[in-house]
This record gives sequence, structure tokens and C-alpha cells, in this order.
Amino acid sequence: MPIATFSEKIAQTLSTINYGDEPTELYEPIRYIMDLGGKRIRPLLTVLAHHLFEDEVDKALLPAAAVEVFHNFTLMHDDIMDQAPLRRGQETVHEKWNANTAILSGDVMLVKAYELFLGVQPIHLPIVLKLFSKCAAEVCEGQQLDMNFETRTDVSIPEYLQMITLKTAVLLGFALELGAVLGNASEEDRKNLKEFGIKTGIAFQLRDDLLDVYGDAAQFGKQVGGDILSDKKTFLLLTALEDSNEMHRTELHNWLGKMVANPAEKVKAVTAIYDLLDIKAKTEAKINHYFHEALEHLEHVNAPKERKEYLRALALSLMERNN
Amino acid sequence: MPIATFSEKIAQTLSTINYGDEPTELYEPIRYIMDLGGKRIRPLLTVLAHHLFEDEVDKALLPAAAVEVFHNFTLMHDDIMDQAPLRRGQETVHEKWNANTAILSGDVMLVKAYELFLGVQPIHLPIVLKLFSKCAAEVCEGQQLDMNFETRTDVSIPEYLQMITLKTAVLLGFALELGAVLGNASEEDRKNLKEFGIKTGIAFQLRDDLLDVYGDAAQFGKQVGGDILSDKKTFLLLTALEDSNEMHRTELHNWLGKMVANPAEKVKAVTAIYDLLDIKAKTEAKINHYFHEALEHLEHVNAPKERKEYLRALALSLMERNN
Repeated sequence: MPIATFSEKIAQTLSTINYGDEPTELYEPIRYIMDLGGKRIRPLLTVLAHHLFEDEVDKALLPAAAVEVFHNFTLMHDDIMDQAPLRRGQETVHEKWNANTAILSGDVMLVKAYELFLGVQPIHLPIVLKLFSKCAAEVCEGQQLDMNFETRTDVSIPEYLQMITLKTAVLLGFALELGAVLGNASEEDRKNLKEFGIKTGIAFQLRDDLLDVYGDAAQFGKQVGGDILSDKKTFLLLTALEDSNEMHRTELHNWLGKMVANPAEKVKAVTAIYDLLDIKAKTEAKINHYFHEALEHLEHVNAPKERKEYLRALALSLMERNN
Repeated sequence: MPIATFSEKIAQTLSTINYGDEPTELYEPIRYIMDLGGKRIRPLLTVLAHHLFEDEVDKALLPAAAVEVFHNFTLMHDDIMDQAPLRRGQETVHEKWNANTAILSGDVMLVKAYELFLGVQPIHLPIVLKLFSKCAAEVCEGQQLDMNFETRTDVSIPEYLQMITLKTAVLLGFALELGAVLGNASEEDRKNLKEFGIKTGIAFQLRDDLLDVYGDAAQFGKQVGGDILSDKKTFLLLTALEDSNEMHRTELHNWLGKMVANPAEKVKAVTAIYDLLDIKAKTEAKINHYFHEALEHLEHVNAPKERKEYLRALALSLMERNN
């Protein structure tokens, strides 16, 4: 079965969900954000994890869709908090409607995500909802840490890794563990799949940090150096601050929080310090470290090698992406 | 057992919940809003409904607490949307912290409400979460309708009753049905308790509308005529618009949306029209109608009369409240 078949089943499932009709002001924004698309990576992880243990993937489709609905709920609320004007190139919900609509439609999306999980077999329901609720709270914790970091100047690298783990990686871990639970996998296989997801998620986020500075502007699809201009505490900046001598650290601190007339100058200056300190290679090493660990966990999962290949290929494609 | 014993058990249960620790910015607002107090009517309904069918109420305490956590989640998010400065006489969360904190802490509260429900017996879990999710979505629908009504001038009385049913009454209905489900009540008893809650909730909200105009300012604890000044589409206003002749209707419409130099004058003028049209008696009749229906549903519940007396007395106290 080509991977596109799994993706089509997921798209089909998502298209059949009826979130609700009245009042339209509440439900229309849900259909809008869900229809913006995206790569549907999380539900794909659930379905592919399930496929490791069972031939028939239909049972995993609604819970997989629930993960995607939850993910889009977090995007809707995060976009309010980050005052983001665009999402996938289109107006964000709070821009197209208003913040109140984005708050309330988001709330009902979280409820709908739980409702979709109610479709799992009763035997799996308690564990699925326990794992999901833990993950959902952690994603909120990650978003809170991310906001806290904006005004902090003493963020450590371990703190940063913890933040991206909570904000981004645990949901990938949950998506995979969910598929394993529904496929009646062993405790050990569940844990290995979860760790595969978490480590892949961390590597994925670090790669995002890297591409923001060293990516190809045209392919990356956003302004190169955006993180530098917004003084974002990325892995690159935190590593640079840690590895630099007194002079470079002072120079970096001088750029942080500075209103600049010429943005390109700031990007160029900070990138020059990164280059001096070999930050690109150090970040790549860290990415490879996590990605290698992720693949080791997948390696240990007791499932047919050809089925695990789907997940390995998907993780690989995430790492090689240019956007 | 005096009713205070049930209340104490609920207070005790709520005080032992650990919502989470880190980051404190996320969890502190939850403790703050939960500690603002309130009469804990909803969890009391759950426990009293459960007590109709079982002597031991301990099993109902955590789910009852979940209802209260959910209720406070809706308050936290509604207060952002309504830009309310105060809640129970204290600063609202978005005022004390900021809107982002109130959004995110609210989100995690909704997750925590679901987590608390996971403590019910596995046999009850699917139905409890199905009923709760339906109710939670309805509460969001009610809030959306309430916001829609702010800018509409053609709200009908049935639409208004539908809005308060969703925004306020269904949660009381769910709280009661929850207790019944946990007490293994019959389908019929469940439905009657639910309807008792919904009808009581509608009567309660109509009484709130009435007290805003005809309440004792000192006892009511808020400005008399606040709804008139904010042009709120209450049962009183909608009934007045429906029952008035051309002249009074024009006069009412002239006051709506009018910026007034002298607020007391507007309150006095609108109240005078209400008096002419006998709106107080008409509202009281509607309240009595719903309250009577509520008590009929309670009457039909197959449970010891002396146990049902707790619920009757509680509903009565809600109707006679001056604040």
C-alpha cells in the first residue's frame, strides 16, 4: 500500500466530520482552519503506528482525525496569543473574524477532539483519554514556557529543549503511542514509538531553527533571519551565547532587543557571529543526535521491517524538508 | 445528613485537586479562580442527584468537582470575551494577568475537567464523556448566541429562551444527569432529573433578568438597571417590545443604543414602560411556569421523598435568592 493511500483515508475521514451547524459563527471558523490543509503528519503517524500491528487501519482513522483537530485547536489559540496575521498563507481566524470567535471556536474544537476519541473501543477509552489529556496539558505548558521565554534573557539550552519537547514533540509522541495502543501493541513497543515521535519532533524543531537562518529563502517560504529579527531564543542563539567569548556575547546582547533601521544588517551581523562559532555545524550535530536516537527507538519496535519503513521514510522526509 | 455535609465534602474534594505546578504562570490562575469561591451549586446538584440512588456519595465527588472546574473554565473565557473587570468582586484573570494567560489557563482547565471525569468507573466513562462533551459544546453555542444577540435587534423570545437554555441551563441539567448516571438510575429518572435541572436553570436566569430591574440594589449586589443601560436583550425587554403598542415600541427603540448623560433617567424611563406593560408580573409568571415544570419532573423521579427534598430546597433557595 503506497503511503498516499493512508493519506487519502485520513483526508476522507477529516472531510466527513460534522463539527456542528448552529450557530454558524461558532462552527464556520473550525471548517475554515481545518480546510487550510497542512501535511496531516500527526494523523499519519497514528495510522502508520497502528498499521505496524494490524492490517486494517480503519479503526485508527477517527482517533487520528481527533489528533489533527486538537493540533488545529492549538494553532487557532496560539495564533491569537502570538498575534499572527497568517496561517498557511491565509488569514488567521482571529484576523478573519475576531479574537472572541477564535477563543470560542477553539474551545469547542477541543471538545470535538475529545468527542472523536469516544469512537475508540471501550477497552481502550480510559488509556487513550489519559494519555491524550496528559499530552494536551503538556502542549499548553510548552506554549506558556514559549511565551515566558520572550521576556527572559537567561534561558538555558536544557530549558529550551524542554519547551520544544512540550510544545511540539509530545504531540508527535502521543500520535504514535495512540496508534500503538489501538493496535494492542506491547508496553515496550508503545514506549519506543512514543520516544521515536518525541525525538523526531525535537530534531524537526531544531531543523526549523536552523532553516530560519541557513535555509533557502525561496524554498523555506518565509523571511530568512526572522528569528534573529524577533530576538527569538532559538537553539542557535542560545548555543551562540553559551559558546561565545566575552566580546561576542556582548555583541549578541547588544543586538538583542535593538530596534534596527536596517534589518538585513542585524541578520548579517548575528549570522556572522554564528558562523564564527560554527553554530550551523553544532546545530546539525544536535539534529543528527536526536534523529539517530529516534531511529534507534523505531528499530527496537517489534513489527515487520517493511511496515516500519513507512515511519522511517516519513521522519526522513521531515528532516529533509526545505519548507 | 444536613446539606452542609455534602457541601463540605465538595469543598474538601476541590481543595485536594492538584491542577499542576510548572509553569506557575499556567496553573496559578486556575487556583486563583477556583479559590474565588462561589456557591458550588453544580457539584452539589451532582452529589444530591447521586444521593437519590445511593447512600454513599464519595463516588460522585470527583466528577462533581469536574463540573465545577468546567464551569470556572467557562467563566474564565467568558470574562475575556465580555471584557469583564470583576468576578465575584475580585479582578478577573485576564485583568490580573493578561488575556493570553486567561486563554491558555482556561484551555488547560478544560483538559483538567476531562481528566477528573476519568476517575469514574470504566462502565460509566463512555456515557459520562458523551453527555459532558455534548453539554460543553452546547454551553459554547449559548455563549456564541449571547454574543450574536448583542448586535441583533430582532431577537425573538423563543431564541432568547434557547440561548439561556444552552448558556446556563444545560450545565445544571448535565450536573444532575451525571449524578443519576453514576447512581445507576433508570433512563427515565435520568431524563427527569436532567429536565428538572434545565427548567430550574431557565427560571433562575429569568429571575436574574427580573432582579436586575426590580431587585433590591443593596441585596442584589450590583447596579439596578445594568441590563437596561447596556441594552441587553433580556426576557423583560423582549417581552416589552412584543407586548407594546407602536408608541411604546418606538420609545423603547429610541432608548436602545443611546448614549445617555443621565443613566438614571434611562433606567427610569424604560422601567416606566415595563410597569405600564406589566412586565414584572409577566416575567414572574414565566418564572413560576418553568419552576413548576421543574418540580413536576423532580416529583416523577423514583427516589425517596426525603432525599428529593434536598433538591427541591436547593432549587427553591435559588429562586428566592436576593443576590
